[in-house]
Amino acid sequence: MKEAATTTLLALDAHGGDYGPDVTLPAALDALELEPRLELALVGLPEAISEAAKVDHPRLRLIEADSVLAGDARPVAILRQGAGSSLGRAMELVAQGNVQGCVSAGSTVALMALAVKQLGPLRGIHRPALMSAIPSADGSTSVLDLGANLNVDARQLVQFAIMGSVVRETDERSMPRIGLLNVGHEETKGRTVVREAHERLRELPLNYVGFIEGHDIFAGRVEVAVCDGFSGNLLLKSSEGLARMLFEELRASLNSSPRARLGGWLARPALQDMLARLDPGKHNGAPLLGLRGVVVKSHGNADRAAMVHAILEAVNEARRQVPGRIEARIEQYEAGESN
Amino acid sequence: MKEAATTTLLALDAHGGDYGPDVTLPAALDALELEPRLELALVGLPEAISEAAKVDHPRLRLIEADSVLAGDARPVAILRQGAGSSLGRAMELVAQGNVQGCVSAGSTVALMALAVKQLGPLRGIHRPALMSAIPSADGSTSVLDLGANLNVDARQLVQFAIMGSVVRETDERSMPRIGLLNVGHEETKGRTVVREAHERLRELPLNYVGFIEGHDIFAGRVEVAVCDGFSGNLLLKSSEGLARMLFEELRASLNSSPRARLGGWLARPALQDMLARLDPGKHNGAPLLGLRGVVVKSHGNADRAAMVHAILEAVNEARRQVPGRIEARIEQYEAGESN
Repeated sequence: MKEAATTTLLALDAHGGDYGPDVTLPAALDALELEPRLELALVGLPEAISEAAKVDHPRLRLIEADSVLAGDARPVAILRQGAGSSLGRAMELVAQGNVQGCVSAGSTVALMALAVKQLGPLRGIHRPALMSAIPSADGSTSVLDLGANLNVDARQLVQFAIMGSVVRETDERSMPRIGLLNVGHEETKGRTVVREAHERLRELPLNYVGFIEGHDIFAGRVEVAVCDGFSGNLLLKSSEGLARMLFEELRASLNSSPRARLGGWLARPALQDMLARLDPGKHNGAPLLGLRGVVVKSHGNADRAAMVHAILEAVNEARRQVPGRIEARIEQYEAGESN
Repeated sequence: MKEAATTTLLALDAHGGDYGPDVTLPAALDALELEPRLELALVGLPEAISEAAKVDHPRLRLIEADSVLAGDARPVAILRQGAGSSLGRAMELVAQGNVQGCVSAGSTVALMALAVKQLGPLRGIHRPALMSAIPSADGSTSVLDLGANLNVDARQLVQFAIMGSVVRETDERSMPRIGLLNVGHEETKGRTVVREAHERLRELPLNYVGFIEGHDIFAGRVEVAVCDGFSGNLLLKSSEGLARMLFEELRASLNSSPRARLGGWLARPALQDMLARLDPGKHNGAPLLGLRGVVVKSHGNADRAAMVHAILEAVNEARRQVPGRIEARIEQYEAGESN
């Protein structure tokens, strides 16, 4: 518990996302309330900063930015205009070592582009990966990559597994179960690159359970599910879409007759418990892994509570020094491999 | 309506799948009842055939097979032992022109291997694709490929789109909406092969709506969603797993207190309507497209009603002469392309 005794410093992009400071400022204050040893640097446009100054919280630093990146900005524009933006300034604080990490609801493209440019990848990491936790029967399963790497080689898939394992370790002895997504559980199935990664993963001191299929994610068979970014992105977005459709169908069916409405009213507390348990906001906060600093992406439409979760994810990763651990683990495992 | 006036002949593999003749025979009789101009050839082991002979249905022909392929048989074993198996004999009937198509609950690997060997692909088709319809807000969306082609090139993705369009056309004038699954809607996003297919699809006289994302499948934005088999397989299996988890959560929450139980009891008719609407059995029957004959795969665990759906899918494709239409369309579109 030595880690908890020191202060954690994080930067928070006040803008990016759908609601900006209306969500980020209250969420920042909530997080500071929950975490007495946290300091936040809120980075925003002058008007957002002067609004935040009225609060005058002793652990909330305020940093002005010149601009805000558009949600649909292209990489070229991001790299050209990024430096003075709220996200760019937040990354700068990480790069200069003033804070340990940053949180933003900006676009994945913007976070990735500026993180790679301003922080750079860890030693041994070719490209960072985006990971997100999704609700499962057993709690949650973290899936990576979710779109940062559309085409991957076997070495990258192995690195995803190592990085995911580090993030999901809750203490020194925990061994998160890692699975490699494939089209079947059998060894002979799947793409060459996936079978190659499978062979390498079996040699490493990870809790690697082998190939898994899509349904294993939700059955809670693993803590970490590894795949290329194209598949991961489809999987995440289709799951969101399916869940939304099913909840809408449920709502409609509980409104389809007076009897169903009465039933729905009686069942409401139980159904609300269920929704709370499955609430994706509870898992908001997707780390970009493999960078020289903690970077956590929030959903663009995160509300106050969801944004607090994203901040706490960054707090947790910063305290556990996830970037340093990943670098050490990659070095150790890849050195062992080449023997 | 001229097509409906002639008799449709199909072969049905009595085995394969989890229940064998206990499901296939009653399903065959149901389908014959529903379709007065259908004739079925039930292909099975002698004991299944003598059981079926007791029914003595005038439109149910009985064909003996020597063996049944194991559900987990590998391609080599399938090709070696396939000929005398119930699935192999069913395919043989198609290959010899005795029937227009066949239906089996056997493994995808077995269906694909024997279909390619015994029927062969249509002219111009490199590899067949597996397509399945999944429930959406608007009815259903057909997704292909679902695992027959783990790595694809742009030409294959275009062929998937053409084949999917032919299957979903309900009459001569209907133009099913086709989408290409990608990591974003923007033209600049995604893998090279997907962007290349996008450029070609825009030139063809299809109702091509452009890139779609995972959630668009369930929002009912398209009738046909095209992707490589690796992604499609993950998408299908993860959707099944998520739906199962959510229904189990719903059941548990409606059992969590006396009040919730009463609510659940009152809402039950409405919830059952919802489940019936979303029942994947209603969409059972996944065609293997691009072959010289209709081949429809049933889920291994299909019950009687689901098996009937698979048979009716094959009836529909045989009546509409889907294989011939696909061949003509591929020829026409690819000729136009090379101009």
